Amino acid sequence: MSSSTHDAVEVISAKRDHHALSDSQIDWVIDAYTRGEVADEQMSALAMAVLLNGMSRAEIARWTAAMIASGERMDFGGLSRPTADKHSTGGVGDKITLPLAPLVASCGVAVPQLSGRGLGHTGGTLDKLEAIPGWRAALSNAALMAQLESVGAVICAAGDALAPADKKLYALRDVTGTVEAIPLIASSIMSKKIAEGTGSLVLDVKVGTGAFMKDLERARELAEVMVGLGTDAGVHTVALLTDMSTPLGLTAGNALEVAESVEVLAGGGPSDVVELTVALAREMLAGAGRDDVDPAEVLASGRAMDTWNAMIRAQGGDPGAALPQARETHVVAAPATGVLTRLDAMAVGMAAWRLGAGRARKEDPVQAGAGVVWHARPGDAVREGEPLLTLHTDEPARFDRALASLEGGYDITPGETPFVPAPLLIDRVG
Amino acid sequence: MSSSTHDAVEVISAKRDHHALSDSQIDWVIDAYTRGEVADEQMSALAMAVLLNGMSRAEIARWTAAMIASGERMDFGGLSRPTADKHSTGGVGDKITLPLAPLVASCGVAVPQLSGRGLGHTGGTLDKLEAIPGWRAALSNAALMAQLESVGAVICAAGDALAPADKKLYALRDVTGTVEAIPLIASSIMSKKIAEGTGSLVLDVKVGTGAFMKDLERARELAEVMVGLGTDAGVHTVALLTDMSTPLGLTAGNALEVAESVEVLAGGGPSDVVELTVALAREMLAGAGRDDVDPAEVLASGRAMDTWNAMIRAQGGDPGAALPQARETHVVAAPATGVLTRLDAMAVGMAAWRLGAGRARKEDPVQAGAGVVWHARPGDAVREGEPLLTLHTDEPARFDRALASLEGGYDITPGETPFVPAPLLIDRVG
Repeated sequence: MSSSTHDAVEVISAKRDHHALSDSQIDWVIDAYTRGEVADEQMSALAMAVLLNGMSRAEIARWTAAMIASGERMDFGGLSRPTADKHSTGGVGDKITLPLAPLVASCGVAVPQLSGRGLGHTGGTLDKLEAIPGWRAALSNAALMAQLESVGAVICAAGDALAPADKKLYALRDVTGTVEAIPLIASSIMSKKIAEGTGSLVLDVKVGTGAFMKDLERARELAEVMVGLGTDAGVHTVALLTDMSTPLGLTAGNALEVAESVEVLAGGGPSDVVELTVALAREMLAGAGRDDVDPAEVLASGRAMDTWNAMIRAQGGDPGAALPQARETHVVAAPATGVLTRLDAMAVGMAAWRLGAGRARKEDPVQAGAGVVWHARPGDAVREGEPLLTLHTDEPARFDRALASLEGGYDITPGETPFVPAPLLIDRVG
Repeated sequence: MSSSTHDAVEVISAKRDHHALSDSQIDWVIDAYTRGEVADEQMSALAMAVLLNGMSRAEIARWTAAMIASGERMDFGGLSRPTADKHSTGGVGDKITLPLAPLVASCGVAVPQLSGRGLGHTGGTLDKLEAIPGWRAALSNAALMAQLESVGAVICAAGDALAPADKKLYALRDVTGTVEAIPLIASSIMSKKIAEGTGSLVLDVKVGTGAFMKDLERARELAEVMVGLGTDAGVHTVALLTDMSTPLGLTAGNALEVAESVEVLAGGGPSDVVELTVALAREMLAGAGRDDVDPAEVLASGRAMDTWNAMIRAQGGDPGAALPQARETHVVAAPATGVLTRLDAMAVGMAAWRLGAGRARKEDPVQAGAGVVWHARPGDAVREGEPLLTLHTDEPARFDRALASLEGGYDITPGETPFVPAPLLIDRVG
């Protein structure tokens, strides 16, 4: 069937009327949208129909393939090492990529981590690394390949040539209330990861108040769809479902999270960040055929820190330079004595965002030093009047709105009742 | 609640998540869309969400009011006569406005018939009248008012100032697969009719293969919603549900339908066109408080023809001039002897459109002489080899595609089995 036999209204109407789109319809609509023949207002109507009426696994697979075909594909086949990549659906204090990439690389598996910037309450990996003086996010494909061979790990900006249809569609979904469609989320993530050419992939699918997916059932469905897409495309793919009702570690903010990541690489750092870094590293190594290496041992050995330093230097950064600090801080004291039984990830994420760590619009700048430090994690004892949170920003006018988002964001239970926080690792798919 | 508290994604998401939109959300989104603050891609996503998740009667009423408020309102209160208007949801061979407006006017009720052009397989009233040499569709409000007072009937183009939000939204729905939403159809029709300021309104809601609404249940729902909107806005509103599985009369095409309308005004013409014209006239007169007048008698008297002539002359037309004729004709002979038991309205409408009577895009011209004449109606006897249909066009290259759309478009049952066609008037709402 010739693709010229389709038109936008026909494709939109088919999905509107609960039909499965044919391969030919999907190929045509993605290609025509990329070329501008299908207009934004047509694609947004189709996106809403997909959100409300769904797509089958076969439709999602074809949609993903069509988005991959809209741009270039990378090929890491010439490297001397296998490759593994990680993708997180986004959470608060989620700095895991920073220690994870050098850790896995120091275990002998190359990590090409093409990343994005933050939007809204979740931070972006590139924003965090840009807090390091001199570090540059943009790399040519040739420089990326050379650094993968020499250092073993690259965290850089994804080029515009990978899945341009997704880039266009993602910007459209953001302004048309069509972000929350599992077929569109899954195909958006997986088209970029498959086009990127990684041999194996570990997905960190977050669940909870600070995550995109608030409930476990939807998170599991998203994980299953993505694992299916990766597997069908020949990428060894596994997903971990992990908790995001509590923020990760003890910091949210760009320079603050870099500092915490360096602590982890030095063998310290918060136990949850270490736990998740090691769990994801184990999956990446297994996917790349290196389950003979124990990442916990490698982390303790200090080799991962050497790789971190080399990785930062290779992109112009000075790993020994002092990190930017916010000009102003504000301490929130614990209002009672007892056990911290809840610290809400969304409340902390919104506070960090309002302090200047994140952006409301793509073109906004971020503050390197802004963010939130919490001095206790759920399960820890706290004492009335002692510091519970410290807010950091260059602009003290931001404190009020940040404090407002923290209202009701934590619970302290009086007494010494033992409290066991929810497990971080919820389930594994794949 | 201040309208500045809303944004497009919030309104879209509310409807996407099956919530009722608040009055404030509806007022804001229609106003912001009219001003260009809400973008086309946002409104089309909202339109798809409305199509798939519906709107309550209260939401539809508010949406309609907001569209009326987007433009000017006309006021016929200064006329010496009451006003009545008719709207048809569109069908094949539906020339009823042409004899109806002068008929009702000649019974003492003013008819301000603001009309549109055809798109797709249904013809437009203005396209039909433009087949008359010299006739002009555009009138200023002052000229419209003066003609209503002097002649009593005006059929002219609706100005851009009435419900501009609807004009913009209608064009958007046409290209985004969101035409078929009852809330959007009802509010589109009724916002224009209420803004136009008519005192009473009769809706001709078509049902069948050649209509927008293919099944009776949806047509009845549309009729009920529209009657409710009109009544709540103080317009005496009634709807007739009428059959559109068979085309009306014996002609589809611009000049062809003008000629058939003139036959009806002269006391002749096909019985179904006469029946529907008189039925609608009766409702319009009753709505305007003139149920003492019998339109069938007035039609027979020839007074409606005098009003027609005056109405055409007032807009520059020559009612005595010869009508344009297509340069080429092609006769389709009956393939068998028997009774015509089906003539499909959609097949005939598509053929007339493909012969040049209609347009595919708003900016396309139409041929005045193009169209289809059928020589038998369901229930009539036909004889093998004798003319069943005659196709008219200026461009003989169009015959093939027109013949293709007529394939399977009619049934002839051998023998003389008595056949009673479905009734034209199905039901009345209001």
